[in-house]
Amino acid sequence: MPWYELESADDPRLDELAKQYHLHPLHIEDSRSQYESVKVDTAPHYTFAVFKPVHLESGMPAFSTIDIFAGKDFFITIAEPGCPATSEALARARREGCDDKPGKLLYLILDTIVDLYFPAIDQFDDRIDELEDSVVGSPSPEILQSVFGIKRELIELRRVLVNTRDASLQLQRDPGSIIDAEHQLYIRDTYDHVARLLDSVETQRDLLNNTLDIYLSSVANRTNEVMKVLTILGTIALPALAISGIYGMNLKGLPFEASTHGALYVGGFTVFCTVLLLAILRKFRWL
Amino acid sequence: MPWYELESADDPRLDELAKQYHLHPLHIEDSRSQYESVKVDTAPHYTFAVFKPVHLESGMPAFSTIDIFAGKDFFITIAEPGCPATSEALARARREGCDDKPGKLLYLILDTIVDLYFPAIDQFDDRIDELEDSVVGSPSPEILQSVFGIKRELIELRRVLVNTRDASLQLQRDPGSIIDAEHQLYIRDTYDHVARLLDSVETQRDLLNNTLDIYLSSVANRTNEVMKVLTILGTIALPALAISGIYGMNLKGLPFEASTHGALYVGGFTVFCTVLLLAILRKFRWL
Amino acid sequence: MPWYELESADDPRLDELAKQYHLHPLHIEDSRSQYESVKVDTAPHYTFAVFKPVHLESGMPAFSTIDIFAGKDFFITIAEPGCPATSEALARARREGCDDKPGKLLYLILDTIVDLYFPAIDQFDDRIDELEDSVVGSPSPEILQSVFGIKRELIELRRVLVNTRDASLQLQRDPGSIIDAEHQLYIRDTYDHVARLLDSVETQRDLLNNTLDIYLSSVANRTNEVMKVLTILGTIALPALAISGIYGMNLKGLPFEASTHGALYVGGFTVFCTVLLLAILRKFRWL
Amino acid sequence: MPWYELESADDPRLDELAKQYHLHPLHIEDSRSQYESVKVDTAPHYTFAVFKPVHLESGMPAFSTIDIFAGKDFFITIAEPGCPATSEALARARREGCDDKPGKLLYLILDTIVDLYFPAIDQFDDRIDELEDSVVGSPSPEILQSVFGIKRELIELRRVLVNTRDASLQLQRDPGSIIDAEHQLYIRDTYDHVARLLDSVETQRDLLNNTLDIYLSSVANRTNEVMKVLTILGTIALPALAISGIYGMNLKGLPFEASTHGALYVGGFTVFCTVLLLAILRKFRWL
Amino acid sequence: MPWYELESADDPRLDELAKQYHLHPLHIEDSRSQYESVKVDTAPHYTFAVFKPVHLESGMPAFSTIDIFAGKDFFITIAEPGCPATSEALARARREGCDDKPGKLLYLILDTIVDLYFPAIDQFDDRIDELEDSVVGSPSPEILQSVFGIKRELIELRRVLVNTRDASLQLQRDPGSIIDAEHQLYIRDTYDHVARLLDSVETQRDLLNNTLDIYLSSVANRTNEVMKVLTILGTIALPALAISGIYGMNLKGLPFEASTHGALYVGGFTVFCTVLLLAILRKFRWL
Repeated sequence: MPWYELESADDPRLDELAKQYHLHPLHIEDSRSQYESVKVDTAPHYTFAVFKPVHLESGMPAFSTIDIFAGKDFFITIAEPGCPATSEALARARREGCDDKPGKLLYLILDTIVDLYFPAIDQFDDRIDELEDSVVGSPSPEILQSVFGIKRELIELRRVLVNTRDASLQLQRDPGSIIDAEHQLYIRDTYDHVARLLDSVETQRDLLNNTLDIYLSSVANRTNEVMKVLTILGTIALPALAISGIYGMNLKGLPFEASTHGALYVGGFTVFCTVLLLAILRKFRWL
Repeated sequence: MPWYELESADDPRLDELAKQYHLHPLHIEDSRSQYESVKVDTAPHYTFAVFKPVHLESGMPAFSTIDIFAGKDFFITIAEPGCPATSEALARARREGCDDKPGKLLYLILDTIVDLYFPAIDQFDDRIDELEDSVVGSPSPEILQSVFGIKRELIELRRVLVNTRDASLQLQRDPGSIIDAEHQLYIRDTYDHVARLLDSVETQRDLLNNTLDIYLSSVANRTNEVMKVLTILGTIALPALAISGIYGMNLKGLPFEASTHGALYVGGFTVFCTVLLLAILRKFRWL
Repeated sequence: MPWYELESADDPRLDELAKQYHLHPLHIEDSRSQYESVKVDTAPHYTFAVFKPVHLESGMPAFSTIDIFAGKDFFITIAEPGCPATSEALARARREGCDDKPGKLLYLILDTIVDLYFPAIDQFDDRIDELEDSVVGSPSPEILQSVFGIKRELIELRRVLVNTRDASLQLQRDPGSIIDAEHQLYIRDTYDHVARLLDSVETQRDLLNNTLDIYLSSVANRTNEVMKVLTILGTIALPALAISGIYGMNLKGLPFEASTHGALYVGGFTVFCTVLLLAILRKFRWL
Repeated sequence: MPWYELESADDPRLDELAKQYHLHPLHIEDSRSQYESVKVDTAPHYTFAVFKPVHLESGMPAFSTIDIFAGKDFFITIAEPGCPATSEALARARREGCDDKPGKLLYLILDTIVDLYFPAIDQFDDRIDELEDSVVGSPSPEILQSVFGIKRELIELRRVLVNTRDASLQLQRDPGSIIDAEHQLYIRDTYDHVARLLDSVETQRDLLNNTLDIYLSSVANRTNEVMKVLTILGTIALPALAISGIYGMNLKGLPFEASTHGALYVGGFTVFCTVLLLAILRKFRWL
Repeated sequence: MPWYELESADDPRLDELAKQYHLHPLHIEDSRSQYESVKVDTAPHYTFAVFKPVHLESGMPAFSTIDIFAGKDFFITIAEPGCPATSEALARARREGCDDKPGKLLYLILDTIVDLYFPAIDQFDDRIDELEDSVVGSPSPEILQSVFGIKRELIELRRVLVNTRDASLQLQRDPGSIIDAEHQLYIRDTYDHVARLLDSVETQRDLLNNTLDIYLSSVANRTNEVMKVLTILGTIALPALAISGIYGMNLKGLPFEASTHGALYVGGFTVFCTVLLLAILRKFRWL
């Protein structure tokens, strides 16, 4: 069975293959579009599939695209070289399935792609844990930006995974599916993996929302603490300023005015007022 | 096959056509109503469809309306001139489908309309990115108003897209659909496009909600920072004011009162107190 | 065909009619209950329907209730006089449908009632727009109370509309429906109207939630601004108070103490310190 | 037909009845468990039902449990005495249905229990209205605790109602249901009542969430107002303190130093500065 | 019937058993994977099940894994020793079901595992109650961390319970289920238990969200109170500082300047101003 491996959908050989195997113009158009999303489309005599393998580029998940035309007696893949996930999927298909039917090849590629989502998602777990610790320790706007950055990537990942789940469900349920009965169990297993990945992404979204709540409540709490410090400073200052102000007035008739230890008496009274004020505030639980 | 292109539903010719082709009074009423929403309605001998082409007016998506009556052997379109999206859809239908059946014409118009949603939605991506950057840099109420403005437009767009998706689903599923088996694959493709557009709109809503969260947390953070500055100012002021106040009192018995370098000694003590206070606050992580 | 128009469910004539037409005791009980909600109930030889016409009372939607027993050869309506929407629905039924079957009458009443929801909902659009503008301009608790008041009315409206949608769906789907095939298209049209009304209510709820977010962020922003003003005041005050306090001390050894232009020099130094402090704060973007 | 009324599931008579009527051990176990929830379970020759009647204990809804085994020719109820709702349900069943089939008895008990939910839920309406008024008037943490208390009770109530709705749906739909065709209409009516109760609980939850939003925005608003007062105080204080401080300095060269009306001139200047400052702040809408 | 109890999936005996009983390689792979989640998979001649028994480790729920291969005439369990929940489940299966069919054994194990979730979930109730009380009394970031910690555990628990519910549903519905008709009632009972557990977890999540809202509103309220204290301090300080500052000026022309009881008069005036100011603020409800 011939397997055509193209590196670009703009390859003129695709047009020849399209003519030879009666590939639908819409599918050719799709494979050349920039906006492809993951899907499986069953045409009368072949299956058209688009998957999005993922690999990590400096810690961020990066998606590439692979288009597959799987007929009864031909197999066409279109994938840009350079994505390690795509390469691994194609290598495994070549190694394990090249004597097999196109259905098996399709399964092998999908299964490898799905398995390679796991490390991409697992690394988020560590980053979310780190962020959560940082937020509790010292909430800063930079951390928040990281939180929103991850949230954005998860939104993207979730979208790809939902489409991949639907695609594997279609391979399972579609009566004209290219996957024969013998391999249905394998596809169901792949479906289970995607479902578990989606579970993880949902959990991570919940955890990120927690982190945001922690951030907001930490900042609210810190503002509250700073306010208290300010109020304590004000409480300490009030008697000192008021009393010293009063004794600074150019007026007559103040007590201890002429006493040699006047400063001592007045100082003692000031300290007494301060302590009393702090005690009152604490008693009414205002501080 | 005759194709009647009307420019307004108030055109008296519509009444003649209604009589000639037995168009249902409810559909005529609908096409003349202000409150039309996107839909496909299958009458026994024709299909009535309402679509909402979109074009950009100074960066804002603007909707117009096109009504279509597609019978077995007639095709009526009612569309106000002036909307570029409508014009393009009609032009493409005339160019590619005018020898074809009404079902093909209907598909061509719907497909063009859907394709023209893409640029309208893509431009939001840029605006949301911009807003997010602005919010992090300098959160201001004006930015927030833009956020809510876009949110409002997305609510509107989403509503139109949901109805368009349901309409294309009905063209696909309805047993009496005007789209024949041969073109079902095309309609399914259109349906996929609408689904992808809806995905994008959902993602954009999520991103806008992120932006709002960033705004609120930035403001909370800034309030917190301003509070800290105020507290630091208070901390610096407290010893200077209290000590200078004390030495301003018209009392006797203060240390260094008569010393020639009294100001120096007291000034040094004040600086010492200030530094001590700041150190204490920092130690307890209040600042 | 006789049409009995009762003005109250407590009318003893209802008991006679119940006996004559074998109306189910549960339906009689329902029509006499205070807690009726919109519904359609198909009994073997007649259909029992409850609708909730709406009219505006000083800008607020007010609901009344109409009960309908529509048999093959009789039609009973129970509606308190005084509600303009009910009167209009009955008048239209009398005018357009009185020679027709009860199914037509039922449709005419339901259709009029649904059409009269539109103005009730449209007026919310204006009020929400107004509120949004007010909130941005000057957020005040009174505006918030209006927001929550409208939210409350929308919750109520939504409940009635959801039940009305379910009722019209049942009239469409129920195999024993009183609406014959010929009028199914009309009922579907009514159903579409209710669905569109529900869409509007959902949109309005979204917009109200936006308004709440705008309110909260406006208040947060204003608190932030007030804090800044306070901090600027503090920054301006600090050098003036500290330096004037120092020169108010009864101590010797301060510079310019004896200079004839001492006040000028010290004043200049104070202004210099203030400007420097403001510049520092601005540089670190604390203000 | 015998009706066995037990007052406790630990009554040894239950074991005898279980043997006599072949009651399933799981149902006996269930009726003796503490964790029972509302359900209907159809065994081959009888129906096992658990309901949760509610009554008000000092304004709070309190639940009790009633277990029912309804066979073709026997009826067993297990209910602790002391709950007024249970007593009323049993009394009505005895009064109206004791010559009837077990299905009728079961319906009568369920219907009475459901009707008694209405007053329990209606009293929440009043309490929520009261809370909302209090929150607008004077937001305090105590009110918030009441809000959360009611929320908690609604969560509980909702859970019981959802299960009751599912149970009555099962009595309606189950082909082996003990409720015969003649009484189906009654059970559907009960189902409608439960659905309406659930609607009310949902609405009350929405209203409680509104109350929480009102609380938070009221507090935010009050903080904002207090800040403004503080800033106004600061604005009034600033010129007085700065200018009086300057004139308190032991320096030469200040204007009006020697004037006999110096205090008047300087006082006037201070008032002028204060008014000017307040005007500036107001102009820039900072206050 | 042989029952093979393995303690690790890496046991080489598993490979022999796989060969002997034709266990599917995917299931063997699953049982050796780290990422297993709860599921039931029906192969042609046996059922593969994965469950997650839970036990409490210092108050935290800890999960272990048990894999089961239940054929017509063999039963294989793979479970690490050390988890008390697993041990109890296996002990009960040995005690009550060892002469029975594999279906009964499977049910006994699942039922025990599910019953042991109850204490794990009940202990959260107490912890949430405690947290809620603490939050009202004294909101602190540590409490919030506990809240988020429990939230995290509930997310985990919920995921396991949802999968367990799906697994027990499959044992009930699957036409090729290993559970025979006689035991269906038992499995349905287990399903009901899982559903009730999920209900509890949902309720606990709601309550935790309440706790978070209480926290945020408590902090907002406290900030508001601290602000008021600060404003009261400022209000008390203002007249004292302003008036004493004025009388500290080296100027002539102030009233009571030369009076022997000047300090008394001015002091009285200061107190009067303070009281007046406080009264004004209270009147306008600013404090």
